[in-house]
Amino acid sequence: MQNIQSYIKEHKDRFLNELIELLKIPSISADSTYKNDVLKTAEAIKTRLEKAGCEIVEICETAGYPIVYGENIIDPNLPTVLVYGHYDVQPPDPINLWDSPPFEPVIKKTELHPEGAIFARGACDDKGQMYMHVKALEFMTANNELPCNVKFMIEGEEEVGSANLATFVKNNQEKLKNDVILISDTGMIANDVPSITTGLRGLSYVEVEVTGPNRDLHSGLYGGAVANPINILTKMIASLHDENNYITILGFYDKVENLSDAERAEMAKAPFSLENYKKALNIEAVYGETGYSTNERNSIRPTLDVNGIWGGYTGEGAKTVIASKAYAKISMRLVPNQDWEEITELFQKHFESIAPNAVKVKVTPHHGGQGYVTPINSIGYQAASKAYQQTFGKTPIPQRSGGSIPIVSLFEQELKSKTILMGFGLDSDAIHSPNEHFGVWNYLKGIETIPYFYKYFTELNN
Amino acid sequence: MQNIQSYIKEHKDRFLNELIELLKIPSISADSTYKNDVLKTAEAIKTRLEKAGCEIVEICETAGYPIVYGENIIDPNLPTVLVYGHYDVQPPDPINLWDSPPFEPVIKKTELHPEGAIFARGACDDKGQMYMHVKALEFMTANNELPCNVKFMIEGEEEVGSANLATFVKNNQEKLKNDVILISDTGMIANDVPSITTGLRGLSYVEVEVTGPNRDLHSGLYGGAVANPINILTKMIASLHDENNYITILGFYDKVENLSDAERAEMAKAPFSLENYKKALNIEAVYGETGYSTNERNSIRPTLDVNGIWGGYTGEGAKTVIASKAYAKISMRLVPNQDWEEITELFQKHFESIAPNAVKVKVTPHHGGQGYVTPINSIGYQAASKAYQQTFGKTPIPQRSGGSIPIVSLFEQELKSKTILMGFGLDSDAIHSPNEHFGVWNYLKGIETIPYFYKYFTELNN
Repeated sequence: MQNIQSYIKEHKDRFLNELIELLKIPSISADSTYKNDVLKTAEAIKTRLEKAGCEIVEICETAGYPIVYGENIIDPNLPTVLVYGHYDVQPPDPINLWDSPPFEPVIKKTELHPEGAIFARGACDDKGQMYMHVKALEFMTANNELPCNVKFMIEGEEEVGSANLATFVKNNQEKLKNDVILISDTGMIANDVPSITTGLRGLSYVEVEVTGPNRDLHSGLYGGAVANPINILTKMIASLHDENNYITILGFYDKVENLSDAERAEMAKAPFSLENYKKALNIEAVYGETGYSTNERNSIRPTLDVNGIWGGYTGEGAKTVIASKAYAKISMRLVPNQDWEEITELFQKHFESIAPNAVKVKVTPHHGGQGYVTPINSIGYQAASKAYQQTFGKTPIPQRSGGSIPIVSLFEQELKSKTILMGFGLDSDAIHSPNEHFGVWNYLKGIETIPYFYKYFTELNN
Repeated sequence: MQNIQSYIKEHKDRFLNELIELLKIPSISADSTYKNDVLKTAEAIKTRLEKAGCEIVEICETAGYPIVYGENIIDPNLPTVLVYGHYDVQPPDPINLWDSPPFEPVIKKTELHPEGAIFARGACDDKGQMYMHVKALEFMTANNELPCNVKFMIEGEEEVGSANLATFVKNNQEKLKNDVILISDTGMIANDVPSITTGLRGLSYVEVEVTGPNRDLHSGLYGGAVANPINILTKMIASLHDENNYITILGFYDKVENLSDAERAEMAKAPFSLENYKKALNIEAVYGETGYSTNERNSIRPTLDVNGIWGGYTGEGAKTVIASKAYAKISMRLVPNQDWEEITELFQKHFESIAPNAVKVKVTPHHGGQGYVTPINSIGYQAASKAYQQTFGKTPIPQRSGGSIPIVSLFEQELKSKTILMGFGLDSDAIHSPNEHFGVWNYLKGIETIPYFYKYFTELNN
């Protein structure tokens, strides 16, 4: 596999341009306005997989956006790697905070990416990281270095909860049969500190609606005499955390796994500078659950965050109105053992119970997923670790991530195989934010590292 | 003046159509998009005043929208009535809750308005009520029944705080000299229960901005570890009321006038059905300051209401983001003796003081005005009372209103004259709300009653 570096060097510009073409399509799954773009992206993925060397590629319809499936089975007796990724992206707003249009990719140098980074929505999450696998396959097939069987399953609803993927997986267990699942949809600590994500948080995402009077009211004539839905909503949300930032929902922590001091000490070894962290976010102080460090708060502890809130007059100037309704989108990050459907129920019960009778409350679950922890002694993890050692010259650090890939635990449950999370992005790549980007170096390093995973995974399986 | 009813009958359709033409112009002073419409409305008012019998009409430029001034001085020795009104309107949103477009007026019958009501933004507040005075003047001049001098001052910035009117009044004290100020920008209890507003609440309107991280963040990677500006904003707003719904801002109540039991008993005599009140708003229960009745809460007590709140992702679907900023528009209704500028300062100090150091807070004052109480033994009040007795056949009830007309106390201070608030709208007319309307009967009843005010005010001054 010594010729991989020269192959990448030779095809670098094409690899970049192919990704840039994909990034130009606004495949925003959360907003139905972009339906045709999402579908167009699925078609593009199909074509790219065919060109890269998949013998069979299908666009599998679902109740929502289709799943692109591809495979190259070279020998039934060899192990099979199932690659998962997604071709949909987050909405780009707030659009005015982008330095360049989110769907007009540009390559710019940054402090952390001296060789340049591709700026576009989806550059890192997940079009860029997903496409590394397509190009890695191209290299292996073009050079007869594909050591095992490969399957691709690229979905278009990851950013909205993967509801239909779950059904697809349940109904296609034979087709998706594999020995390991490989995903690049996470990050690593730094370009010189490779890491493998061994834990993910679960997610419960709900929307709440508080209704007061049956119409907007003049705040002068009614102010003080009727419940203002916005004031009530703020009271209700505020009460969801106590003075130590513990979540007050009854039973919320019942199943939370508490790490041993030894495990926490191991975690604390990961290089981290609180000063740099605060500097990067321009904040005076961090804020979170009493008794836990920043890295613990955003990985091994569950959280509750308001992701959006709105109600009343939000335009220019002033309007003295009491709104009839107020809304919020609230998500809870969960840790292993917390069941997302159970937590969603607990939230709903609790939120309804704390509403004063002067308002009506509606809680609508959006989606969710379970947390996940992968063992570091599995063949898959060992193969990934060796691959990083080969291309980075360093042993990667196992790392818990605060993010969620809800379907990972579903894969284990339905397909009975472990998932390896080889992420090549950085936390500073601003995924889900304006000016999302992905380092050119990281993109190419991923393409270089992935084939070694196939090599070592196949060898270790003998 | 016996021929007033026949005159109104004869010109009813024209009176309605002229108002409808005015209502078609979207004179939204809060939104600069409508600048030309606001200016167009000022021109229209000028023309109408000239036709109605003003000898001099001027469009007086200000730093903002112009003030339309008109006068008819028939004899310097006779008393002078100064009519104040405004030609600007509130923004119409939420637009989707209107049954018909806000600037395409339609007349429809309602339970409370069997003779029909004009549905349009500004129908009642204040184009409809302001235009009653123009038509009343038309009647008096056309029939040589104008008993005294009259001046009109119609502004275009009432819905955004009248900042430039204040300056105009200060600089034109001689021009605006008068014996009484007459305003129709309030309501009455019911069509068979005429009332005169004797008290108004003051107002302090501020906008707050809470900033956390310098960019939107992925709630999975950062959730739990950094202060979420929306969560913090809800905590801060929630803390502005205690468990008895007392406002917690230090010093907020220091100057609040406490009414005697006798005064409260007098107020309690106004006909009021809590059941009908709740039914009309479709609420299970009212909500407010412990120890006060609904009518006290919305009139003699100060309040704090969030008029708008926004932050994060508010679009379709779900976005797992921690917003960089969260915003709210907050208004406080004040009672006589509370100084709005002092209260604004107290709010700003307090709000900044309760912000955790993990966020930055900005408080921007929008506008405000003082509260006001008018004595019921003045000549002006007596003239108004007699006018209602003449046309309604009943003595009107003096009533405290929760609303604010910030400039009323300024008038008293600068022009040294009392204001009489003859309102003909109903609380159910949905001013500041979707489907604002004004009863045809109320519109014509106002036109019929106003000339009697002129008559009795002139007589009582002899």
